[in-house]
Amino acid sequence: MSSITPAKANVLVVGSGGVGTMAAFALEKGGKASVTAVLRSNFPAVQQSGFDIKSLDHGDIQGWRPIRDTVPNTATDVTAQPYDFIVVATKNIADMAPSVADIIAPAVSPGHTAISLVQNGLNIERPLIAAFPSNPIISGVSFIGATEEKPGTIRHDDHDVLLVGAFDNPNIPSTTSAAAAKTFSDIYGSCPGIDVIYEPDVRFTRWRKLLYNASFNSVATILRMDTSRMRISEHVIDDLIRPIMLEIQATAAAAAGVQLPMELVDRMITVDTFEAFFKPSMCQDIEKGNYIEFENIVGEPLREAERHGVQTPTLKVVYGLLKALQWQRMEVKGLVKIPLVSEPGMRYGSKPRVVT
Amino acid sequence: MSSITPAKANVLVVGSGGVGTMAAFALEKGGKASVTAVLRSNFPAVQQSGFDIKSLDHGDIQGWRPIRDTVPNTATDVTAQPYDFIVVATKNIADMAPSVADIIAPAVSPGHTAISLVQNGLNIERPLIAAFPSNPIISGVSFIGATEEKPGTIRHDDHDVLLVGAFDNPNIPSTTSAAAAKTFSDIYGSCPGIDVIYEPDVRFTRWRKLLYNASFNSVATILRMDTSRMRISEHVIDDLIRPIMLEIQATAAAAAGVQLPMELVDRMITVDTFEAFFKPSMCQDIEKGNYIEFENIVGEPLREAERHGVQTPTLKVVYGLLKALQWQRMEVKGLVKIPLVSEPGMRYGSKPRVVT
Repeated sequence: MSSITPAKANVLVVGSGGVGTMAAFALEKGGKASVTAVLRSNFPAVQQSGFDIKSLDHGDIQGWRPIRDTVPNTATDVTAQPYDFIVVATKNIADMAPSVADIIAPAVSPGHTAISLVQNGLNIERPLIAAFPSNPIISGVSFIGATEEKPGTIRHDDHDVLLVGAFDNPNIPSTTSAAAAKTFSDIYGSCPGIDVIYEPDVRFTRWRKLLYNASFNSVATILRMDTSRMRISEHVIDDLIRPIMLEIQATAAAAAGVQLPMELVDRMITVDTFEAFFKPSMCQDIEKGNYIEFENIVGEPLREAERHGVQTPTLKVVYGLLKALQWQRMEVKGLVKIPLVSEPGMRYGSKPRVVT
Repeated sequence: MSSITPAKANVLVVGSGGVGTMAAFALEKGGKASVTAVLRSNFPAVQQSGFDIKSLDHGDIQGWRPIRDTVPNTATDVTAQPYDFIVVATKNIADMAPSVADIIAPAVSPGHTAISLVQNGLNIERPLIAAFPSNPIISGVSFIGATEEKPGTIRHDDHDVLLVGAFDNPNIPSTTSAAAAKTFSDIYGSCPGIDVIYEPDVRFTRWRKLLYNASFNSVATILRMDTSRMRISEHVIDDLIRPIMLEIQATAAAAAGVQLPMELVDRMITVDTFEAFFKPSMCQDIEKGNYIEFENIVGEPLREAERHGVQTPTLKVVYGLLKALQWQRMEVKGLVKIPLVSEPGMRYGSKPRVVT
């Protein structure tokens, strides 16, 4: 970090659902960061009463409110200190505006702020590197279980484990990126009761997580089905989950030189606590009527496979179905117009009818 | 038909939803059949008030009740006349007992009764030929739009078109099967206002219908989406519907020597009236909480493809998803037990947890 770094790192957290709020709290509690969280829909509730947190790792917290309702513009606001770290814990809906880069842009100091993406999926760093070519981009893969039950009320019921490493940013020395990731790991890991693991091989970490997300998260979303029922049925694992995992395994090897051993595939199938009857994140999103972050979880690995000539037939169909589900959400939210009659120029509009 | 055929054919209709009731009515109205319909869930309502039918082809009908609540046993009931035809218009849920053969067995006179299957899917004749080796089996492919809105109340709003032909039953002369199909076609076709078309090439007729059912009916069921919205989106057609149609086309050629021309594929994509925003039958079934007849619509073509070495990757994934949806229904109906904790012997039960 630059020489103007104060005793405490100046940290902005964007995205204050379950994962983001617990990250903000852990960073603050560790004592090495001064944290501000940017809230959107839950800002009024938290402004009034503060966060109400019931945490497995930290106990009960009430009235915590280190918040603001906009991303500060550090270029125009002379009172604003530059941010050493911006932690992004929003959903990553790559196919919908605004982009992550657009959201955080006003608070990014070129060549200084390290951007830590605590988000799912593959190639999420690419638009950030394009937008902020001289900044370190950090990967955070989170295994926390934390849910915002209502605005400002967080239930944190699965231990906070965060895997941290630096994405490769070809514009800056890899030692600079690695140093930023290590510093972030140290600041976050200073909080007692949680586990932050520095894993420099970010590609391996991310492809390994995709074994789970491309398979269980996608299929759960299409079927609205928890992972324990899939395991009880057996055929959902055999027909869908394992084939997708094997396609991810093959794509990881061809596209990134990442070897995911077969025992890891087997282990990933039973990784969820059986008794939890867990519904993965995109399934929760679709049941809440939210958009799903399928482009980075399925679209990017699929495109990597196509680029490298890997056959991923299962992933391809699952992608087509998830894209349709997203389109249905777009209709509900008014972004798709449904004509009541067939219109001239429609590719699949009415044609003269022939019975046989 | 045998020499004991009376002036009017003695016809039993099994399955009195929309399709079956309108078939029973048309057969009776044609004047060449004496019709009895076997009702199950709607028997009490129809026994009390008769059918209440609003028909595009026949106008308004009230109080019609040529019904009984069990399949008659013509072997033990000395007052029962043998049936010349049994028309089966139930859903064909191949993976659930009782089978169609078991349901109609008491009313089948060996070597006499012609069994007319007005049902979706491929290879549906096979269990019937196995159970009744000396009987003609007739194929009925229906294009009617008819729905039972509540017990006994039928809305018939899309013209009754029935394609009739004989399935190949290797145990009896093909002329016998063809004669039965022609007679059935004549009896049904005597009703004014409807179209019965005798199509001797049943394999072509059935594979052509599968172009639609394996694609639109399956994808609609998974997505709960009407076919007009699929066409508006375009990507649902391009990513899912057309690939499945091409897989059916290839399988039809390899497995049955049936050539489905490319222009037929193109025509089938826009076959539904756009303004109807039509949800195909299995989609309606799943929305009502019923079982889906996916084994004959997707399972059988998939198995034919595998037997003949045809690659059908899209169909395979769709099959896996439909099987999962059927399994969810089985749970709701109490046919699947969900253990609350992982049990010894479960293939995908709990394993020791490893975090990374």
